[in-house]
Amino acid sequence: MSNEKLSTQPYKGTRDFYPCDMKLRNWFFGKIRETLELAAFDEYNAPMIESLELYIAKSGEEIAKEQTYNFLDRGGRMLAIRPEMTPSVARMVAAKMGELNYPLKWFSIPNMYRYERPQRGRLREFWQLNVDIFGCDTYEADLDVIQSAINVLRAFGADETMFKVHINNRRFFNDVIAAICGTDTEGSRKVSKIVDRKNKVTREAYVKDMNELGITDEQIAKIDSLYTMDVFEATALCPDSVGSGELVSLFDALKATGLLKYCVFDFGIIRGLDYYTGTVFEVFDEDPENNRAMFGGGRYDNLVGLFAKNAKVSGVGYGMGDVTLENFLVSHKLVPDLYGEDYRVLVTRFDDVPYENYIALVDELRALGVTSTVYIGTKKFGKQIDFAVKDNYTHVAIMGGDELAGGKVKIKNLKTREESEVERAKLGEYFA
Amino acid sequence: MSNEKLSTQPYKGTRDFYPCDMKLRNWFFGKIRETLELAAFDEYNAPMIESLELYIAKSGEEIAKEQTYNFLDRGGRMLAIRPEMTPSVARMVAAKMGELNYPLKWFSIPNMYRYERPQRGRLREFWQLNVDIFGCDTYEADLDVIQSAINVLRAFGADETMFKVHINNRRFFNDVIAAICGTDTEGSRKVSKIVDRKNKVTREAYVKDMNELGITDEQIAKIDSLYTMDVFEATALCPDSVGSGELVSLFDALKATGLLKYCVFDFGIIRGLDYYTGTVFEVFDEDPENNRAMFGGGRYDNLVGLFAKNAKVSGVGYGMGDVTLENFLVSHKLVPDLYGEDYRVLVTRFDDVPYENYIALVDELRALGVTSTVYIGTKKFGKQIDFAVKDNYTHVAIMGGDELAGGKVKIKNLKTREESEVERAKLGEYFA
Repeated sequence: MSNEKLSTQPYKGTRDFYPCDMKLRNWFFGKIRETLELAAFDEYNAPMIESLELYIAKSGEEIAKEQTYNFLDRGGRMLAIRPEMTPSVARMVAAKMGELNYPLKWFSIPNMYRYERPQRGRLREFWQLNVDIFGCDTYEADLDVIQSAINVLRAFGADETMFKVHINNRRFFNDVIAAICGTDTEGSRKVSKIVDRKNKVTREAYVKDMNELGITDEQIAKIDSLYTMDVFEATALCPDSVGSGELVSLFDALKATGLLKYCVFDFGIIRGLDYYTGTVFEVFDEDPENNRAMFGGGRYDNLVGLFAKNAKVSGVGYGMGDVTLENFLVSHKLVPDLYGEDYRVLVTRFDDVPYENYIALVDELRALGVTSTVYIGTKKFGKQIDFAVKDNYTHVAIMGGDELAGGKVKIKNLKTREESEVERAKLGEYFA
Repeated sequence: MSNEKLSTQPYKGTRDFYPCDMKLRNWFFGKIRETLELAAFDEYNAPMIESLELYIAKSGEEIAKEQTYNFLDRGGRMLAIRPEMTPSVARMVAAKMGELNYPLKWFSIPNMYRYERPQRGRLREFWQLNVDIFGCDTYEADLDVIQSAINVLRAFGADETMFKVHINNRRFFNDVIAAICGTDTEGSRKVSKIVDRKNKVTREAYVKDMNELGITDEQIAKIDSLYTMDVFEATALCPDSVGSGELVSLFDALKATGLLKYCVFDFGIIRGLDYYTGTVFEVFDEDPENNRAMFGGGRYDNLVGLFAKNAKVSGVGYGMGDVTLENFLVSHKLVPDLYGEDYRVLVTRFDDVPYENYIALVDELRALGVTSTVYIGTKKFGKQIDFAVKDNYTHVAIMGGDELAGGKVKIKNLKTREESEVERAKLGEYFA
């Protein structure tokens, strides 16, 4: 079976999670779950493999094939490893459309794969928090998902100096562009693509692209002024737009609920995908070193329509990758010492004490809720202590023949180096 | 985007997890994590995709290709979706062999795929608990993993009438077969394959297979007698075998620690795979309707050797699939009512009360740790109550203009139908 050439490295763009890495993930996913469940979001999941058709129907054949790991099964089905969760959840809602109890408040933290060049914040395998509300097409649902994003970050101790939710509205965008430029729906869509790329290209290129669409320099100047307006100035330009009304309702509610300090109106937020129809938002890391979108989302009203022609279940939601969240938490120093919070006791052993006595002692400790194990290796006492220190144990329990006979155990605190002799019946008091 | 032919069904052999399904999984995986962490097992994970080579090196090309979903990436790498965790964890140990602090007590609950015909208890996508100890080659590690399996089941309320751990030892098996039949290593291995299939073929076919290997009817009768012996009778047939010593040490320790009632010596336990070297075991559901192995595992001493020629890190562990566990829990009625244990409050709304007041009320409830949300839909009061009942809410909070003005809220318990008027400052007492 031996093969010296077998690599020990994980596949390109993927990560191994050793226990210390996993402890960090479990901590932050745990906090996310807790925060969302407290707000009555329910967790769901779907298979890692879906029919490739699902992604083609949503994003077109080229993007779907380019972006996914896809392959044929032996039954000739064209499959893909999910690159995102939205098509799966739309499929699940469509499958039980008549039975479900709307509005649905759902979330998931699935692993997924995208075929792309690995870079900072972007890997081939990642986990993505998905939060969605289905079956409510008014501002209350938009407010609820935005509040959940804010509360997730606040649960880690983040405040308004560390992140901001940048909010726009696609209906407002289309209407105000039409008002300024006289464009039709398709024209406004083309302008949105240019605005979406604005920060990635030079000013010259931006202006040139606009001019090529027939947008004059004067019109460009009017669009420019929207980037510095607040939401009330901006929507006043286009008071009859349904999008303006949605923005005003949302921002009024953000203000009334004390959430406005975490939010800002940003006319540059487009979200590339065509399926967004109303509110769109991105949550930015305010650290200038790391100033990028961590979450992105918005309202999409027709995804379930992929599955049933006349179906309409409106949705609003967002996705957040684990890699960007981890970067945010680390760069803002929001990760506490994850070891040392809870007791973790290594029961050391001596050869002259029958082994079952150590098992009985760990059983007592575990019954008290104290994480513990007997040292099961063969090293001498001093090395057992070294093992405990290296493995983040907080205490060692020492029980030789004398202690056993006396119903006692020595407990050494590895941080303070203090050693106490404790009656076994009183271990519960020691580890209170 | 509309396409009436897009199926809403998940891919063959996979499952959608709607919130009620996910609640069950989170409950049982949570209990497993809690039990293992209490025993100082640390969680890890690895990528879902690995190099196909990894599975070929362990199981041979035919099995690896047959059993996995495998495909080429655009860089010409032959990849597979993991069908099991052992090769990944062996790779991870090999990658940091010199740095790790042995013995390692590790576990993981990854999702994985096997290309096989879906049937009861066996699906194409499943989750599998993997528990392993690396770097300890004595019986204490075998005892520790077996104890962890027993404790996982006990954590669900299962007792010795519901499951049994069937234990054998590959070294003992080989030695006792050699003693009875005079076989060499290869001959004993061939006998083990026949014994492994014993319950799947007729007695006639079993005898015929044995005879073909040159095993006489008298020798078969001697082997038969091993199936009904206890471990001490059996090992007495072969007292000098290292495997006999291991079995006796393990069973002595099981007896001394009170775990023997959950265990039984079973000469028929082989575990098909050739890499097992010592203790092997399977945990059986004792329900005659469902009498099958739920966990399987054992000692394998050379897996890290796949990666580095002279490396040796011994391991012992087991895997348990989520589907068989769920069948076990359901058939033994070990799943409690997962709703109704915790408060879940729907704050109903009236149009004449400004919305931010409802947000303020849910914020107060969440600050008390009470799961709650405002009803964000547009239905009338009666329908809001119906929504709450259907969605497993335990209480509704009702706040009209009068209650708001009086700093009060009506709380209705949906189980008892009792309604109380509670001062908002005293909600903490109500939901204590």
